[in-house]
Amino acid sequence: MNTVCGHSIEEYITRLTDFHGNFAPGLFIGGFMVDIAKRHVQQYEIFDVICESPACLPDAIQMLTPCTIGNGWMKIVDTGRFAITLYDKVSGHGARVCLDAARLDRYPEIKNWFLRLTSKTEQDRDALIRQIIDAGDGIYSVQQVVVSPSLLRKHKHGGSVVLCASCGEAYPEEDGNVCLACQGMDIYR
Amino acid sequence: MNTVCGHSIEEYITRLTDFHGNFAPGLFIGGFMVDIAKRHVQQYEIFDVICESPACLPDAIQMLTPCTIGNGWMKIVDTGRFAITLYDKVSGHGARVCLDAARLDRYPEIKNWFLRLTSKTEQDRDALIRQIIDAGDGIYSVQQVVVSPSLLRKHKHGGSVVLCASCGEAYPEEDGNVCLACQGMDIYR
Repeated sequence: MNTVCGHSIEEYITRLTDFHGNFAPGLFIGGFMVDIAKRHVQQYEIFDVICESPACLPDAIQMLTPCTIGNGWMKIVDTGRFAITLYDKVSGHGARVCLDAARLDRYPEIKNWFLRLTSKTEQDRDALIRQIIDAGDGIYSVQQVVVSPSLLRKHKHGGSVVLCASCGEAYPEEDGNVCLACQGMDIYR
Repeated sequence: MNTVCGHSIEEYITRLTDFHGNFAPGLFIGGFMVDIAKRHVQQYEIFDVICESPACLPDAIQMLTPCTIGNGWMKIVDTGRFAITLYDKVSGHGARVCLDAARLDRYPEIKNWFLRLTSKTEQDRDALIRQIIDAGDGIYSVQQVVVSPSLLRKHKHGGSVVLCASCGEAYPEEDGNVCLACQGMDIYR
């Protein structure tokens, strides 16, 4: 694999570092995962994404697909697993791609990083990047999945917006008599 | 305000449409909110962000600050309110900016949109954009806040990663005997 979703490797590294604030191996690998997943959902007009990890992976998705956390086309469902699913937004049919620990024996730097067998300071960053590029598609598993109806995109309710009797700010009326923050969320001291 | 975080209005509209997939008034307004908030936290070397709405606003933050959902510097705390807080990542001191419903009487299109007084099809999109630009800083409120310690950035645990006895995938050992997904999350059919 010499490209990631149409970008050269160098270009992708520059973009991810710009967007994410620093280079992260998980984000670099995430680019390859998005590339593979996209090839498996070409038949769907519009795909949504589930990201099973809250760290790094969401940024690869946001950079390389139209799906963002703010437009709601990407959902983070934190299972602790390093996997993404691209799926048809209506039927839920799609492809799940994960980094497969069982395929990492030939790539010790990737294995050390993924399973946290070495500390960050012991990592050989250049070797890690080289192995990720060399490994190509060979370290990922792809499954055909159907996303649970509970996670499929809903039509927005468009319910009423009212002013909170406590803080005075606008909030969705369906949240209750006062806004959720005034119901006791621990946000500000 | 003729610029949004250093971008011309036209440039910002192009960028937000590219990133978000379509033009969204909330995302346009979000740009002004980020601009205002940034001016109030210039004294802090590194700021993190709390976004109180899961829709639109997170994308303004991700486009205009180094804070993303994937690097963990932006957190979404869904209070249903249209507000963002930029704060010093160590002390929690910062500035909270919200769109202030009490200041919208002079801007009927903004008020209609924000309080959902008109349907999407009844909205005059051009007038809405014009009013947002004309209003400048005048429709937002800024509060000095201190973010609750529970929301401040934690050092990552760096705990062990093990293979799930059920699905075989890597997951954080601290999640339990099997990964969270295999503990019964409703994700795939």
